[in-house]
Amino acid sequence: MVLLVMKFGGTSVADVDHIRNVARHVKREVDAGNQCAVVVSAMAGQTNQLIEWTREAARLHDTREYDSVVASGEQVTSGLLAIILQDMGISSRSWLGWQVPIKTDSAHGSARIQEIPNSQFVDRVRGGEVGVVAGFQGISEENRITTFGRGGSDTSAVALAAALNADRCDIYTDVDGVYTSDPRIVQKAQRLDRISYEEMLEMASLGAKVLQTRSVEMAMVHNVRIQVRSSFENPEELEPATEGTWTGSGTLVCDEDEIVEKQIVSGIAYTKDEAKVTLLKVADKPGVAASVFGPLADASINVDMIVQNVSDDGNYTDLTFTVMSNDLDKTIKVIEAARSEIGYSDVKGSTDVVKVSIIGVGMRSHAGVAAKMFQALAEKGINIQAITTSEIKVSILIDSAYTELAVRTLHSLYDLDAE
Amino acid sequence: MVLLVMKFGGTSVADVDHIRNVARHVKREVDAGNQCAVVVSAMAGQTNQLIEWTREAARLHDTREYDSVVASGEQVTSGLLAIILQDMGISSRSWLGWQVPIKTDSAHGSARIQEIPNSQFVDRVRGGEVGVVAGFQGISEENRITTFGRGGSDTSAVALAAALNADRCDIYTDVDGVYTSDPRIVQKAQRLDRISYEEMLEMASLGAKVLQTRSVEMAMVHNVRIQVRSSFENPEELEPATEGTWTGSGTLVCDEDEIVEKQIVSGIAYTKDEAKVTLLKVADKPGVAASVFGPLADASINVDMIVQNVSDDGNYTDLTFTVMSNDLDKTIKVIEAARSEIGYSDVKGSTDVVKVSIIGVGMRSHAGVAAKMFQALAEKGINIQAITTSEIKVSILIDSAYTELAVRTLHSLYDLDAE
Repeated sequence: MVLLVMKFGGTSVADVDHIRNVARHVKREVDAGNQCAVVVSAMAGQTNQLIEWTREAARLHDTREYDSVVASGEQVTSGLLAIILQDMGISSRSWLGWQVPIKTDSAHGSARIQEIPNSQFVDRVRGGEVGVVAGFQGISEENRITTFGRGGSDTSAVALAAALNADRCDIYTDVDGVYTSDPRIVQKAQRLDRISYEEMLEMASLGAKVLQTRSVEMAMVHNVRIQVRSSFENPEELEPATEGTWTGSGTLVCDEDEIVEKQIVSGIAYTKDEAKVTLLKVADKPGVAASVFGPLADASINVDMIVQNVSDDGNYTDLTFTVMSNDLDKTIKVIEAARSEIGYSDVKGSTDVVKVSIIGVGMRSHAGVAAKMFQALAEKGINIQAITTSEIKVSILIDSAYTELAVRTLHSLYDLDAE
Repeated sequence: MVLLVMKFGGTSVADVDHIRNVARHVKREVDAGNQCAVVVSAMAGQTNQLIEWTREAARLHDTREYDSVVASGEQVTSGLLAIILQDMGISSRSWLGWQVPIKTDSAHGSARIQEIPNSQFVDRVRGGEVGVVAGFQGISEENRITTFGRGGSDTSAVALAAALNADRCDIYTDVDGVYTSDPRIVQKAQRLDRISYEEMLEMASLGAKVLQTRSVEMAMVHNVRIQVRSSFENPEELEPATEGTWTGSGTLVCDEDEIVEKQIVSGIAYTKDEAKVTLLKVADKPGVAASVFGPLADASINVDMIVQNVSDDGNYTDLTFTVMSNDLDKTIKVIEAARSEIGYSDVKGSTDVVKVSIIGVGMRSHAGVAAKMFQALAEKGINIQAITTSEIKVSILIDSAYTELAVRTLHSLYDLDAE
């Protein structure tokens, strides 16, 4: 007997028939004697409709009201799933965020979970009743409904798994696991059996949209094993969870120690969400970086990669950095407003760049991984515009025209291609 | 300055533009210095969609889950109205049933309000913030969402008016008041300026669908003055509420003492929702009525009118009674199952009957009102199949083919026709 949290996204609960399919996944686990909490998103499209209405109501609006409106989508699906489970003879009830309760801070629209106290919810799930929880929502100290931002139901699921001390958190989605790269551009991409929290975190923040970054962080902190799997497989053909084993369907996101055969590189990610900004002829003297990045920070603009060229004459240099594409216009305005303090001859922004990253915990113990990467790209004539590295990833910025070529080249280079 | 509760139904909040119109009604009152709590229904059609989903999920379902799903509709409109009011510069926030809190019993699907304690909600409305309350819902002792059944937002509004000790409860709807009869069949029907609680109660339970019966009962008990008015009039052209006066738009439902010029008959109502059941050749002896109506009560079937003919020979008689049409099949089955205990030669059910009622508090002090009614109908050749009376109403059962003729005849008879 294991205690499972199962999470189903919007496409998995798109209508009543889909919700019935979700119920069959739950029934498989209950029939095997497992205890289950189930987290559901709103029906696909519903959240967008609700958001659209709040925008129609007023372009700028109180996020407390936004949260109350938008959280209603999960209220509907949680009740419907509880009804269907009961109809299948399974003891079950729905729980809204405020009923569990999932206590959060008051950062409406992107609230953070603070505590899930031991309560009736925990007792009843442990007692064998399936607890169907409305995802994406909690309650603030002021007794208002809060939501967690896009993909927030993943966070609900992981937080509940931690609170319940669950054996595993199964995230059912519309893909059947985590891949070595985007299968739409790398035909030879393979599904990973296991991936470490750190790698998943890098992948999530670098463009792989399988899991919300925050949910992976939380899983890592609380050591919650996540299994990413497909809700569209035949529910009765999958093996129910059993103690100490992993069924092999999907990808297990777990502690590095649980991965026996570590790859140097586990995956290749890319994101087109960044834009490049270049300041020409900036004075090459102390304090210039602060004069540029201070005003950007004040404007809440996140800067990712930064490259400062060595100046030819010791007086002037060029400064390049990247921001999220949707911050580009704002960035240019901020830089122009600070022109007299910074001092530069011209500022240029461009969005025709892509950030390509190689990710792998194996890098820690292997030298020369980055050098090999640069060499391979150079051989294909791909110019690298910026580089950032961490302990387990190397990211480069290149012309977006080379996206597919670069990703496929690196996928082969690190032996990730399927046979 | 007055304290107002304003309630808007589903057609008044059908989309964001309609909700904006509602906000203009609220703004008119706020601009005049009035304190307001606003109760909203779900967008028209939304509740039906949600109910349909619960039925698709399972024909028989847990009403606690049903309530949680269905209550989400009002959650959406309350948040949207608060956003629009804020956008107009009006201090406002939404309140869900559990936030107010509106405490109810646990009769899910048709819960009754038990208490609205003094709380932050009351303080904030009295402090000038517009409190937008999701109608139709409360919270049970078990911390589950409850709903009040169809039209339940009227009940929310009246209960809040009582809790706030409001000066008036304005029910905005798609008609502009209460009429002497159904304008669809009586062209000369007139809007009533005022009507007493008792009369409104009889009208509501006899087919006039303007207000939910329970909300009128509650208004009567707590002496809450209700104004029934149209939400489709130009909000800025209506007069805001002022102390001690009534603006004259719509119909005021109030205590009998506030109505100076009492009519003998205030309105003519009719309902086609009743069916007639006749038992032929029932033994004319003590205990027969109990043998018929006991089993019906056990089956939760409400019996309305009862007629027992005097027997010719002292041995047998015919027994006629009415039930709600949708209970007819069940009634016949119960009667057939009890055939040996009751003893009768045949049972007949028919739905081609209509109940027509005259209502008026003036009847109390005027004799001969019923006699005049029977006489007028006899002159038109309309046969009366059953009669029931109360202090302020007389109801008759007739062949439904005569509905329009009977209603129009009575409308003229009691001088209700518009000039």
